[in-house]
Amino acid sequence: MPETPYLLIDMAKTRVNIQAMAEIAEANGVRLRPHTKTHKLPSLAKRQMEAGAVGITVAKISEAEVMAQHGIEDIFVAYPLVTESKVERAVELSRTIRLIVGADSYEGARKLSDIAGRHGHVLNVRLEVDTGFKRTGVLYDEAVALADQINRLPHLSLTGIYTFRGATIDGQATLDLERAGIEEGQLMVKLADEMRNQGISITDVSVGSTPTGRYAAGVRGVTEIRPGTYIFNDRMQAMLGVSTLDECAAAIVTTVVSRPAADYCIVDGGSKTFATDVQPGTEPLQLKGFGHIAEAPDAVLERLSEEHGIIRLAPHHPFRVGDRLHIIPNHICSTLNLHNNVYLADGGLIDKVPVLARGMLE
Amino acid sequence: MPETPYLLIDMAKTRVNIQAMAEIAEANGVRLRPHTKTHKLPSLAKRQMEAGAVGITVAKISEAEVMAQHGIEDIFVAYPLVTESKVERAVELSRTIRLIVGADSYEGARKLSDIAGRHGHVLNVRLEVDTGFKRTGVLYDEAVALADQINRLPHLSLTGIYTFRGATIDGQATLDLERAGIEEGQLMVKLADEMRNQGISITDVSVGSTPTGRYAAGVRGVTEIRPGTYIFNDRMQAMLGVSTLDECAAAIVTTVVSRPAADYCIVDGGSKTFATDVQPGTEPLQLKGFGHIAEAPDAVLERLSEEHGIIRLAPHHPFRVGDRLHIIPNHICSTLNLHNNVYLADGGLIDKVPVLARGMLE
Repeated sequence: MPETPYLLIDMAKTRVNIQAMAEIAEANGVRLRPHTKTHKLPSLAKRQMEAGAVGITVAKISEAEVMAQHGIEDIFVAYPLVTESKVERAVELSRTIRLIVGADSYEGARKLSDIAGRHGHVLNVRLEVDTGFKRTGVLYDEAVALADQINRLPHLSLTGIYTFRGATIDGQATLDLERAGIEEGQLMVKLADEMRNQGISITDVSVGSTPTGRYAAGVRGVTEIRPGTYIFNDRMQAMLGVSTLDECAAAIVTTVVSRPAADYCIVDGGSKTFATDVQPGTEPLQLKGFGHIAEAPDAVLERLSEEHGIIRLAPHHPFRVGDRLHIIPNHICSTLNLHNNVYLADGGLIDKVPVLARGMLE
Repeated sequence: MPETPYLLIDMAKTRVNIQAMAEIAEANGVRLRPHTKTHKLPSLAKRQMEAGAVGITVAKISEAEVMAQHGIEDIFVAYPLVTESKVERAVELSRTIRLIVGADSYEGARKLSDIAGRHGHVLNVRLEVDTGFKRTGVLYDEAVALADQINRLPHLSLTGIYTFRGATIDGQATLDLERAGIEEGQLMVKLADEMRNQGISITDVSVGSTPTGRYAAGVRGVTEIRPGTYIFNDRMQAMLGVSTLDECAAAIVTTVVSRPAADYCIVDGGSKTFATDVQPGTEPLQLKGFGHIAEAPDAVLERLSEEHGIIRLAPHHPFRVGDRLHIIPNHICSTLNLHNNVYLADGGLIDKVPVLARGMLE
């Protein structure tokens, strides 16, 4: 048995999750291009492709490089690359695989074109559009004009548009995932049509995350969805109603190291083991604590120090020093990012696997 | 120049910070045993020892192993080790270096003694005491009785007591660091005296963190302080008044990747680059955002996605796509933990250094 704390992945559940999303995409006639930031494992990316994904999505050129080294040949870097050295790496990588990169500004796109041109190359580009999340993405009302500008750059092939909106409407978190997903899809299809009316050829209309992808996929004109978290699910998705807790395939295994009093115990996982980016008590989820404790669903992982998790217990709960607890994290993507290795459990066997694309910050 | 985002450490400032804390310890006649969870770098641990530290503190046996492999010979694992395999590793390590381990329960201590005895060995142990932080540590009122029990275990040498209280009083966060530090020291000295009155030999009374260490060090009877963050300082410490922002030696270097509108821009660091365990807006610090932006102190790093930092700007602030920003994180310890490598800047040179004891979760 591995030493705690460690991240345990139930491969049977993972396979079911992979298959379910592939079927949603197929039933809706859209392509599936999973975001692999959730698992950062080439082996799981390959399973997603075997189940029908057309390629993968990553956030960084360094992640794309790792995935390509391990045989993934169709990668979308859904992030604006704006520095010379990263664009150089993108051009280099696009000689060996089908690479698409994001852009959301004319400065950025011009840099892509200039550097591609210097190498006698043409880069595939998608324009990122903000549909209300206020992150990267050209403002919606400025998107057609920018698409037109980018379309005229000599060494770029503008093949599509994409957006990320998550479980939000008008920039506010929402539980109405169906409306959020449909709106996201409709906004982008409308924009693609406007671009086509301007003579800009837009093939790919890429939308949808784990909470909204199944709804966005049903919008006529959407061509691709990019969910990531669905491969494992997590407590946040379960609270959103996207999965059940039982469909969560990844848990942190911890050991009770201290039981100082009747009403709390301490486990050996803190903020260096569980991500803290999805905080308890925030609207609209109102998650209690930093994870769901499988062995005690009413107990609350209330506070985290760096290496301590403080669990509030009903008085005289029987947890004792040495007990192992399985805790489903609030957010699996950023939690997995803390772990150099994960443990894949399959049919009674446990494999220690390095998270190859983890820590690829550059 | 490294690719962004990366963690840049100013070695000149780091040396000043190392020296300043060594002088505080020396002036107060206490030993300094820095917690190396902040940097996880054997090379910096050595610098701390060269400046006068008697040894180091770590949170995990795996960290101790890495530090020992790199020549650190006096290590305190300030954490209760309660599983067979970790205790075995502690016994093994204590054959080659001076190792001290924590304990806070009779079950845990008995396991330490049993396994040490099996190998014909005696382990150095300190008892962890809760002085109000409600984390690990035997309850204060039960500490003398437990020390007596542990003292009778055949294969342990109970050499001291320790606590962690941080910037809190009675479990509440406080800005009155002097009172917090003095109280922490006094509580532990009183306890050590009570134990000695029971015939238990207590040599080490170990207290104090970066915010409180300088005050706890002045309490007569305290023998050791264990600050960690002071080596770099961070925005939280600056807000506490422990350092100035200028004394913060570590910053995340990011690139502006998008400027979609007049009032915000996006940098290429999110919750996989900046830790989120010290959240904005919490009492009593009321930090605005997730870091201090050196190039624009009034701008607010307001939201983080996994790979995006959303910065609210005064309208028409001149940041442009491609600009590099240096951001002092709220909490350097958990932020550094996200990075496989850090970049040490010294006299115009920048060295890429692997964070050797990072990710040692086990």
